Parts: sequence; structure tokens; C-alpha cells
Amino acid sequence: MDPMTYTLVLLRHGESEWNAKNLFTGWVDVPLSEKGTAEATRGGELLKESGVTPDVVHTSLLRRAINTANLALDAADRHWIPVKRNWRLNERHYGDLQGKDKKQVRDQYGEEQFMLWRRSYDVPPPEIALGSEFSQDADVRYAGEPIPRAEALKQVLDRALPYWDGEIVPDLRAGKTVLVAAHGNSLRAIVKHLDGVDDQTIAGLNIPTGIPLVYELDEETLKPTNPGGTYLDPEAAKDAIAAVANQGK
Amino acid sequence: MDPMTYTLVLLRHGESEWNAKNLFTGWVDVPLSEKGTAEATRGGELLKESGVTPDVVHTSLLRRAINTANLALDAADRHWIPVKRNWRLNERHYGDLQGKDKKQVRDQYGEEQFMLWRRSYDVPPPEIALGSEFSQDADVRYAGEPIPRAEALKQVLDRALPYWDGEIVPDLRAGKTVLVAAHGNSLRAIVKHLDGVDDQTIAGLNIPTGIPLVYELDEETLKPTNPGGTYLDPEAAKDAIAAVANQGK
Repeated sequence: MDPMTYTLVLLRHGESEWNAKNLFTGWVDVPLSEKGTAEATRGGELLKESGVTPDVVHTSLLRRAINTANLALDAADRHWIPVKRNWRLNERHYGDLQGKDKKQVRDQYGEEQFMLWRRSYDVPPPEIALGSEFSQDADVRYAGEPIPRAEALKQVLDRALPYWDGEIVPDLRAGKTVLVAAHGNSLRAIVKHLDGVDDQTIAGLNIPTGIPLVYELDEETLKPTNPGGTYLDPEAAKDAIAAVANQGK
Repeated sequence: MDPMTYTLVLLRHGESEWNAKNLFTGWVDVPLSEKGTAEATRGGELLKESGVTPDVVHTSLLRRAINTANLALDAADRHWIPVKRNWRLNERHYGDLQGKDKKQVRDQYGEEQFMLWRRSYDVPPPEIALGSEFSQDADVRYAGEPIPRAEALKQVLDRALPYWDGEIVPDLRAGKTVLVAAHGNSLRAIVKHLDGVDDQTIAGLNIPTGIPLVYELDEETLKPTNPGGTYLDPEAAKDAIAAVANQGK
């Protein structure tokens, strides 16, 4: 008899307007682009075609993830399921780089510093100034929360894990198929945790937008029985991963 | 000193594809029309312009209300608030009339029976047959729930009230501005309850689509300090109420 597993679906939001403009976004709450809207709907169609039926959805507090979840669940006929949202699923806070052009930052600081900020596990970018244009310190949605002013992936994992343990794991253990609609880096943090990816290897791991990534988790250990997960459209995922890796080039 | 009040916002979904086709919809889960999508966004803009900021949203399990809430909250920059959904906020179950053309039903059964089914307080239409095309008995979202097979407004009020008392009132008493995104008849049921509208008068009360209706509720009695509520776009509401009254004519 097969061991019992729980089903987790990770979905990175579709292209945002700032993805399209090649700007560092982080916690700036930009909308999906037209392409991103189509990607989200396609993600939902993939869920439906594959017979993957989320019972609950967890999202960040950013509209590109929220609207991706809304569009995907509508396309999958699961628009009516319970919804939970938390800032701990937000994108990595890009600090003072938020709102800046990726290519300009690379030209200004050089390839090495640029890649360190983008891909090192524990070197955060410079902190954002309180009250500056792209800061979230006055944003009511985060009132009273210990929000960051800049993060490397390590800090994302540190603040995502309490939410994983406290809110997502209980839903999984209740036998629910859980959809997490979030961001490149908050999902990389979860994948690092699940697959036990080391600090170096995670730098090269990219998650494509809009393609559901399905994990089957062992009911005792919560470790993947399909390490790395399974993309519902593997060919598209392969192409998209290559494209993400070329960002800023 | 003014007495303290709680703020409740009722929002009827924008036009659906079946509203546009003049079919009885009830619990059939049809999408918004293009016009309905625009109405939902406009509803959110009205919230934003008026400085009305929902802290929590309650919706039915039907996509025309869910997507109206999604679009309105996105336009109002409140897309990130907590979400609660329940079938007790669903539209009135139109029984065997679901999927039928309003004009054909009127021609077949006559004006008197037609208006009785549409507007009487406690005469439900014929029950829908289990397993029929527009029945919800096999719909997983209602599994285990005591769902109806036909309702008059009285039955809608009877099943909505436990949700009002158990889920919405606690949010109001916690001081939250509550948005309820739902349907013509589930919102009429709530209005009847709040304003103490009698069984005859409620027949003539129509709620327009996509225009937020704001109630200020006395903190002790939860009765409106602005009886009948206040539409955020009173002129548009007046025109739309007249249009609703003419449906099926």
C-alpha cells in the first residue's frame, strides 16, 4: 500500500508590470501585467485539467499574488474555497533597491555585487529609508507587524517558517490540498525547507511564473515523496526557468 | 457626543451573464458580464473616493459575488483584507425556475404567478429536481450543508440570519468595517432584518448592482442610525433601482 501523502501546490504569481519593466519590486504592490493575468488563468486551467483541487488557499498581502490566486481559482472552479493571507508569504523585501531598474543597479554596482544581492543566501541589500517612496512602514496592512526593511533569502525563510508551521502545516495535516500563491523568493524559501536545498544550490533554483508546482508530502515527515516537486506543465516550466535566470542580463 | 456606530457596507454583484440574458439564476454559478466587471471596479472606486475602508469581507460561494468583491477591493486598495465565504449569503435558490427565461416563465404562468414567485415574501417556486442540470445537490462546495431546493425570501432570511449573528455581528462588534458582497435577495434579507421592513414593503425594495450601500449601526442595538442606508452614488442608485424593478417586463 502506498504511504499516505498530503498535496501542496505552489504557484508563483504571473508577470507583474514591474517584472515587465525589469524593476526591483519586493514589497511594492504593483499589479499583474496583461501577460501575468493570462498566466494566472492558465495556471488555473492546468489545475483543472490535472484534477488538482485546492481546498484552501494561502496568499501574501500583495495584489500580484492575490489576483493570481483569484484568477487561477476561478479558472479551476475553486473560487469558493477558504482564503488565508499573511505578510509572511510576501516577496523578499528588496530594501533600498525597490523601484530601481535592475540593469542600472548592475551597471552602477557591478555584476558581482548585483548577483550577491540577487542570489546570495544571506547578504541583504541596503535597508530602505523610512518614509521613502517605496517603503511600507506607513502601510496599514502591516500595522503592528515586525516587518523588515531589507531581506536576503535567509530572512525570508526565517519569517515564512512560523507561518508554514503555524498555518499551512495544520491545513495539510487536516488532509486539505493546500494552494500557496506567492512570490519567487517566498516560494524558494519554502522549497529550500521542503527539499533540504543547501545554501549554495538554492542560488541557482528559479521558480517560473504561473505554472503550478505540486508536492506530495509524506504524512509523517512532511518531506516530499517527489523531491523538487512536479510542474503541471513541465515543458513550459523548463523554458520559463531559463528565462528567469536571464533576468537583468 | 455622537453615539459610537459600526459601519456595514452591502455590495450587490455586478451584472452577470444571465442577468444580461434575463434568465433566473439563483444558485447557478454564472460569471459576471463585461458590464458587471466594470460595475464591480466602479464600486471599489466609490469606496476609495468615499474613504470607506473595509477591514474584512464576507461573500457567498458564487463567483459573481466573489469576483465582484475581488475587483472592488482591488480598486479600493483593500485586496489584502481577510476573506470569509459562506453559502448562507448565496442568492435565493430559484428552484425549478433556475435556468429558465424570465419572460417565458411570465408568459407561461401569467403575470400574477410570476410576480408571486419573484416578489412574495414566503411563496417559494417549485423545488428543483435532484440531479437536474441546474441543481446543486452534487456540488462539492455544499457537501454536508442543509441546502435548499427552492426558496422564497423568507427562507433566505431564515438561513442567512445564523451567519449574520454568528459571523458578521462579531466582526462589527470588534469595530471592523464589514463588507458583504452578495446578491439581490440575500442583501434584501439583511436589509429587511436591519431596517425592520415589513413583509409587504420588502416586495418593492430593490438593491442596485455594484453601488456600495453603507449602514451605520448603533453600537448597542445594531439598528441603523441612517435607516435604509446611504448609497455611495445616490443618483446612479436611483436610476438602477428603477431598472431592476422593470426586469422581466
